[in-house]
Amino acid sequence: MLFRQIFDEKLAQYAYLIGCQATGEAIVIDPERDIDQYVKIATAENLEIKAVAETHIHADFLSGSREFAEHHGVKVYLSDEGDEDWKYEWVHKGDYDYVLLRDGDTFRIGNIELKTVHTPGHTPEHISFLVTDHGGGADEPMGMATGDFVFVGDLGRPDLLESAAGVQGAMEPSAKRLYSSVQEFLGLPDYLQIWPGHGAGSACGKALGAVPETTVGYERRFNPAIQKAEISEDAFVDYILEGQPEPPLYFARMKRDNKQGPAVLGNLPQPRLLTARELVELSGRTDIAVLDTRLDRTAFMAGHLPGSIFAPFNKSFPTIAGSYVTEDAPIYLIVDEKEAGAAVRSLVRIGLDNVVGYAPPEALLAYDETHGKLSSIEEVKFDSVRSHSGVGDVEVLDVRGISEYQEGHVPGALNVAHTRMLVRHGELPSNRKLLVYCGTGARASSAASLLSRLGHNVSVVNDEFDNWPRIGEIAVGSPQVVATA
Amino acid sequence: MLFRQIFDEKLAQYAYLIGCQATGEAIVIDPERDIDQYVKIATAENLEIKAVAETHIHADFLSGSREFAEHHGVKVYLSDEGDEDWKYEWVHKGDYDYVLLRDGDTFRIGNIELKTVHTPGHTPEHISFLVTDHGGGADEPMGMATGDFVFVGDLGRPDLLESAAGVQGAMEPSAKRLYSSVQEFLGLPDYLQIWPGHGAGSACGKALGAVPETTVGYERRFNPAIQKAEISEDAFVDYILEGQPEPPLYFARMKRDNKQGPAVLGNLPQPRLLTARELVELSGRTDIAVLDTRLDRTAFMAGHLPGSIFAPFNKSFPTIAGSYVTEDAPIYLIVDEKEAGAAVRSLVRIGLDNVVGYAPPEALLAYDETHGKLSSIEEVKFDSVRSHSGVGDVEVLDVRGISEYQEGHVPGALNVAHTRMLVRHGELPSNRKLLVYCGTGARASSAASLLSRLGHNVSVVNDEFDNWPRIGEIAVGSPQVVATA
Amino acid sequence: MLFRQIFDEKLAQYAYLIGCQATGEAIVIDPERDIDQYVKIATAENLEIKAVAETHIHADFLSGSREFAEHHGVKVYLSDEGDEDWKYEWVHKGDYDYVLLRDGDTFRIGNIELKTVHTPGHTPEHISFLVTDHGGGADEPMGMATGDFVFVGDLGRPDLLESAAGVQGAMEPSAKRLYSSVQEFLGLPDYLQIWPGHGAGSACGKALGAVPETTVGYERRFNPAIQKAEISEDAFVDYILEGQPEPPLYFARMKRDNKQGPAVLGNLPQPRLLTARELVELSGRTDIAVLDTRLDRTAFMAGHLPGSIFAPFNKSFPTIAGSYVTEDAPIYLIVDEKEAGAAVRSLVRIGLDNVVGYAPPEALLAYDETHGKLSSIEEVKFDSVRSHSGVGDVEVLDVRGISEYQEGHVPGALNVAHTRMLVRHGELPSNRKLLVYCGTGARASSAASLLSRLGHNVSVVNDEFDNWPRIGEIAVGSPQVVATA
Amino acid sequence: MLFRQIFDEKLAQYAYLIGCQATGEAIVIDPERDIDQYVKIATAENLEIKAVAETHIHADFLSGSREFAEHHGVKVYLSDEGDEDWKYEWVHKGDYDYVLLRDGDTFRIGNIELKTVHTPGHTPEHISFLVTDHGGGADEPMGMATGDFVFVGDLGRPDLLESAAGVQGAMEPSAKRLYSSVQEFLGLPDYLQIWPGHGAGSACGKALGAVPETTVGYERRFNPAIQKAEISEDAFVDYILEGQPEPPLYFARMKRDNKQGPAVLGNLPQPRLLTARELVELSGRTDIAVLDTRLDRTAFMAGHLPGSIFAPFNKSFPTIAGSYVTEDAPIYLIVDEKEAGAAVRSLVRIGLDNVVGYAPPEALLAYDETHGKLSSIEEVKFDSVRSHSGVGDVEVLDVRGISEYQEGHVPGALNVAHTRMLVRHGELPSNRKLLVYCGTGARASSAASLLSRLGHNVSVVNDEFDNWPRIGEIAVGSPQVVATA
Repeated sequence: MLFRQIFDEKLAQYAYLIGCQATGEAIVIDPERDIDQYVKIATAENLEIKAVAETHIHADFLSGSREFAEHHGVKVYLSDEGDEDWKYEWVHKGDYDYVLLRDGDTFRIGNIELKTVHTPGHTPEHISFLVTDHGGGADEPMGMATGDFVFVGDLGRPDLLESAAGVQGAMEPSAKRLYSSVQEFLGLPDYLQIWPGHGAGSACGKALGAVPETTVGYERRFNPAIQKAEISEDAFVDYILEGQPEPPLYFARMKRDNKQGPAVLGNLPQPRLLTARELVELSGRTDIAVLDTRLDRTAFMAGHLPGSIFAPFNKSFPTIAGSYVTEDAPIYLIVDEKEAGAAVRSLVRIGLDNVVGYAPPEALLAYDETHGKLSSIEEVKFDSVRSHSGVGDVEVLDVRGISEYQEGHVPGALNVAHTRMLVRHGELPSNRKLLVYCGTGARASSAASLLSRLGHNVSVVNDEFDNWPRIGEIAVGSPQVVATA
Repeated sequence: MLFRQIFDEKLAQYAYLIGCQATGEAIVIDPERDIDQYVKIATAENLEIKAVAETHIHADFLSGSREFAEHHGVKVYLSDEGDEDWKYEWVHKGDYDYVLLRDGDTFRIGNIELKTVHTPGHTPEHISFLVTDHGGGADEPMGMATGDFVFVGDLGRPDLLESAAGVQGAMEPSAKRLYSSVQEFLGLPDYLQIWPGHGAGSACGKALGAVPETTVGYERRFNPAIQKAEISEDAFVDYILEGQPEPPLYFARMKRDNKQGPAVLGNLPQPRLLTARELVELSGRTDIAVLDTRLDRTAFMAGHLPGSIFAPFNKSFPTIAGSYVTEDAPIYLIVDEKEAGAAVRSLVRIGLDNVVGYAPPEALLAYDETHGKLSSIEEVKFDSVRSHSGVGDVEVLDVRGISEYQEGHVPGALNVAHTRMLVRHGELPSNRKLLVYCGTGARASSAASLLSRLGHNVSVVNDEFDNWPRIGEIAVGSPQVVATA
Repeated sequence: MLFRQIFDEKLAQYAYLIGCQATGEAIVIDPERDIDQYVKIATAENLEIKAVAETHIHADFLSGSREFAEHHGVKVYLSDEGDEDWKYEWVHKGDYDYVLLRDGDTFRIGNIELKTVHTPGHTPEHISFLVTDHGGGADEPMGMATGDFVFVGDLGRPDLLESAAGVQGAMEPSAKRLYSSVQEFLGLPDYLQIWPGHGAGSACGKALGAVPETTVGYERRFNPAIQKAEISEDAFVDYILEGQPEPPLYFARMKRDNKQGPAVLGNLPQPRLLTARELVELSGRTDIAVLDTRLDRTAFMAGHLPGSIFAPFNKSFPTIAGSYVTEDAPIYLIVDEKEAGAAVRSLVRIGLDNVVGYAPPEALLAYDETHGKLSSIEEVKFDSVRSHSGVGDVEVLDVRGISEYQEGHVPGALNVAHTRMLVRHGELPSNRKLLVYCGTGARASSAASLLSRLGHNVSVVNDEFDNWPRIGEIAVGSPQVVATA
Repeated sequence: MLFRQIFDEKLAQYAYLIGCQATGEAIVIDPERDIDQYVKIATAENLEIKAVAETHIHADFLSGSREFAEHHGVKVYLSDEGDEDWKYEWVHKGDYDYVLLRDGDTFRIGNIELKTVHTPGHTPEHISFLVTDHGGGADEPMGMATGDFVFVGDLGRPDLLESAAGVQGAMEPSAKRLYSSVQEFLGLPDYLQIWPGHGAGSACGKALGAVPETTVGYERRFNPAIQKAEISEDAFVDYILEGQPEPPLYFARMKRDNKQGPAVLGNLPQPRLLTARELVELSGRTDIAVLDTRLDRTAFMAGHLPGSIFAPFNKSFPTIAGSYVTEDAPIYLIVDEKEAGAAVRSLVRIGLDNVVGYAPPEALLAYDETHGKLSSIEEVKFDSVRSHSGVGDVEVLDVRGISEYQEGHVPGALNVAHTRMLVRHGELPSNRKLLVYCGTGARASSAASLLSRLGHNVSVVNDEFDNWPRIGEIAVGSPQVVATA
């Protein structure tokens, strides 16, 4: 058996390529949409991908299953658990070779057996796969691909749908289903390897570790959520629903597309190099999105194309792009030529396919010299921020998640999570300057760029929240209702 | 003035980017179709391409003028000389910004003036451009972009249309027009730089030098064709029509498309990595074309995908691909991943856009181990070739150009230029083994791969023609009529 | 805790980077010598490498510990177990910051604790590390870095020293020590992750799986060697010493250097591009080594620089280079420019630092046209091999390992493992042509290139051993004594 | 004949590769020190570099002649003109194959003849080469490699030695020698191509055009300096010595090394990736040089490693590095990994070989978060600059060349050319803040970073000089004597 964990650092997502060398066949579990990455690995190992499987309908990225089914004629294994809301629709839209799985179903790739285990909670149809290497002489499983059920040190959050898509009342029943799934999990042997669907940095859980895999026995002992499950169902439910970060709103769109079927991609988009004239024409437009991927936020603040969004090409890129770019909006990138391909991949993985053009950061210097002024956003430090409650012409805006806000914030600060800014910015006062902050300045910088693009008057606090003088000056509790006057 | 000569090594083609730094404007003369290459250079020099110009309707590559007009809104300057057969049709097919030029017309890019000179011969509508750098303080031209009129040490061949497209009786009138153009040329001042449209290796002339530019005075003194023109028109016509290599047949298609308008490209094709299964399915098919771009012909002969064409990715690549691949046939490449992009560019430049997939050469090794046998073609040396005239079961086939053949060949050898093989292979005997040779083994190897693909029984002479024992054993003169029995 | 398994595909070697994000500190376990690869990863994760640790004195590659100690001032943790023959000498040769460890010793990197466990067998001083993530809230280990003690599905071979370096009588005591270590291992909890020092393809064991890690419980159940240990010590010793492949002889050199201290590297060697003249001068020389890294053995056989060694740049590269290149010999590479850096890394990792120059494979084509003939080696298929015992002018030479030979070979065939050819080729008859074969043709091709370089007359059987007609024609048992007459 | 002009964009330097295809031999005229660039081109064209020639002892870069002589055994052709101060010394330091040339000497590379023409002025020993392509059938030259004698639209400056190295009284005699050389030049035929040693952007002349080559006839008509020579010697001398920019002081060092022999390089330096700790240790040190190569000066001003020099990796890089880095100082780069190799090349070309380490710009972000604050330099616009003469606590410092200063400057501004800042900064007042400006902000930014490193209190005017309000507020004439109080 050949086993490869394939990590998408930006989405903190793990796919798995599992192959039988004896027969030259392989399967991919939870592929992303740009499937050439898996074909390349398989080819190098002299394997052919004959099947793909999904643990569940993903919310944070578009699945590559349909792409495989369409282009390479592979067999698709999908969950048939969950109620009618959780059925894959796309498999009926073409002449696909698919199998719908229920708890206990098994299938083989060469000499490797995969057994389906229904593990609802994160989502109702969620399944996991027990993998047994018969070719290696084993008759019991080596590990379990757990998708968004069990992570290293965490569990997949059961509140995602409600948080992201506003399906009311879904959280608690989901948490209880997850509790039951954990009970089943505790019946598995200690030595089993756990191959999760996400690593540290994913929005699909709250405390994922930066270790790529774990074991049943280790999680039994040290996973905080599972320890709560050993106390009582209530303790578990309380724990699991507390303090989950606001998921990006684009998650709802991912769910919809993964169910109905992501658009078939064929090839990756190839944005063209923009001429200076085209750059000029993009300036200030809000019907298109210019994503400025530079890593240095000070440089962005000092000068950027009017209307462009600060989306540094680091781990926050999919979150920012997914949250601030409207579906189907033509996208333009400020990006180094050498990174352009990787940025396009990142966008395609969350369904932003309409990437039209790009210009290198140097083009901004030329723009400034020749065609007009770049925009700037003023940066301030925390020592110049005063606590207040909307008095005067300045308002303080905290763009961290609500649980961070509740633990301590600038007195009087408004709170809108940066991932919700696009739909909630209308709640903000439009006649006062907004002083935008977060924990380190990173989220604040992206949020400020969006607010500026939308016509707000903003400064950004490019500073660590730790620099806010704490004693006697920090407030706790929920945000006030935002007054839009 | 900024001046850049941009060389496509594979087509031996020169485009020119000429810019006025004072106004930031630039023009490209004779662009290829993948125009991003010029935009990139202009952008790096802080110039914007505002215009393109063509010297003539090209026969050896697709022009990028329409692509520029369509995508970047640049102004197009084209010839209005020549009769009705030589009018650009595509400019009327869209809302293009174009100017049709006649002899003497001038226009400016910033402070740079271009003056049109009608220089027919290679083609009837051919024009050249005298370039004057007013910004640099000059009031006389610095140089002339001569397209396929004057090369370094050669002139553009006037026989191309007749040779490539079978327009009978066109050669001699063309040669006489060229004679007149040369007379005009001799009236230009000696010091003028000559910026030609092609360099060494192009099929548009017979003796182009590997020096990128020249001057009027130097060509007056040392260009063999011009020296003949100083003797008499007849001497010139005889000289210019003698010994021109057979042009590839795809030239006719280029002419047609450049006149009617090449398809608008937008982005470059992105072939996908082939799986092993897909490779198997391509084996032996003649409705698609597999181009094996490996440089090492011995390796190709020893093992290649059945039906694949030997098209090494060197200077012969466009000729082989253009001559052996039918228009619109789906194309697959055996190519190193790192070269795939460059190979796609080469194909697009001659209108072969349907590039579907690729596999690295290593995949062939895997294919051979797993899926079936690769094909091979036997290689022999010249010392095992016997002269004969179709007696026995072997036939010797010389795939060099006719002028090479006439200078000396294996007695009894048939002759079909390798660039004409696709349309003429039916003339070859189908019941005898063909021993294919050329000067070095390179052209023979590609031709043999095509013949094998088409069902002929072939061996290739992988050797230098110099190794053919000359004394008493070499024949001269024209080829026999090919007997197909 | 951040955990990264770093795989060197060519050596099938795993190093581990383990970091504490809270303090920004990290350790590397079993680094290779080109340490920039680890620094790069650590830097990207905002970690600083403060320490390195070794599980044992490696035999198959040079350790990077001294390089780290010298260049980056990191602390080095090394074994103090084993007798005087197994003490690290280099730590006393400079002002290094080092700690020598005995069984039970613990140390910390940030909040991560490493506990030393003496696990002799593969080598006497071998230690493993139990890793506990206190920062993650655990008070028991998550996993064990086992070096060459426990692999996935295998154990580190205890015979290496005797086989590779001729230390007589070392095997059996080592095997017994390994048996004791296994007993200790079986006392560990099932859920513990096992992080081995090698993966599939390493010469340090015989049946390593292509799964990157395992658990104590899984190995307890399915590791064939451990299952034998559960029967009896004798059964274990017999099993473990049987059928181990001949290790490459360069292993002895690695041991020596890792003990005395590998030369400090500073920067990687930078071979220069060779001119045609230099290539000519290298032709046929045996005081230098030309490694031809092309993957296609047919191409190599058809034409290669006289005296060059077939060392395809795949997983066999370190074995071939380590076995066929004499220490300190100037090395020249036939390699694609884009692969040259990776090839240099591979060589440096086994102590071959004197890489002087390189030429791309295309240069061979030019060489052949201009400067003289390339050498070739005749290829034959198995159907043309006749069994015999040195009668006539042909001798069959089997270059597989002895255990493969014993299972079945061509009757009368001589046997020298391809990794021992450099020291044993003198035993071969010098007046008869050698027909060299192995299982697939790969090892035979490299061995044949070496034999040709050393003056033998060879052909290579480029075929699968399965194509040898088996019935009544296959011999078993040990090889005859080679007659050199 | 094969002719290649090879451009180093950063130094605006042209080398020439001229080869005879018939014999496979080639020569390089005026090679840079990293000679692998030429070997690569020659190899691709199936040529071998057998000789190199120099037009003169270069002042702006280190010659590659010795490197060729040492490593590839090529023949070196050097000038034997000029007095004792202008003799190449290095040729006697080894067993080199060299020829010293005097006016009229000829030699051949294959069928190509080079004839030496003594063309003093720029330097006394300066020679040019008339190139005749006998292989192409010519018996008169095609062009002349003119080195730093004739450029496109300019002549090589005769004042360089005096300006750069303080050799008093050298300018006017040099100008007169140049006048004589021009007279000779005017005797050449109009059609001759001129292949200059520099293009636009070089400090070796004042008005070089961005066209890569020219002709005798065109220069005769439109070269402003030559037109002055047609008036009188005095007019010529006045013109040629007027308004030459201050050459960088490192030019004197280049002259010395090119005469005595540049250090033999072998391989290019390979800076290693710096750890965060090493970055901390470099902070604020002036015994080493940290060159920050980011292009965006606003980003540099906002945050850079204390003591680092702003040396953007554009055309100004060699000038800044050569002027601000002391010979032999250990050099560290802030540079993208992908540009590091190119930056090392640029440094080596001006003799800065001691390149020890590098860190990507992102490392600065990490540094700022973890290890201490980055430095910043305040930026102002021209509208906040007041004219004054040292009154108050602010001083205005103009770092443009003196001729620019004389044409118009801020009243009261001090003037030190940015290329002279390292040796002249002691003349500046140390107790007042310096407001540093130039024409566009580019030179001012680099100068300000140096001044800050040296302990001065600076702001930089990041603005266009055109934004200085001109009417009634602009001063002309020479700078005041700098008051150091």
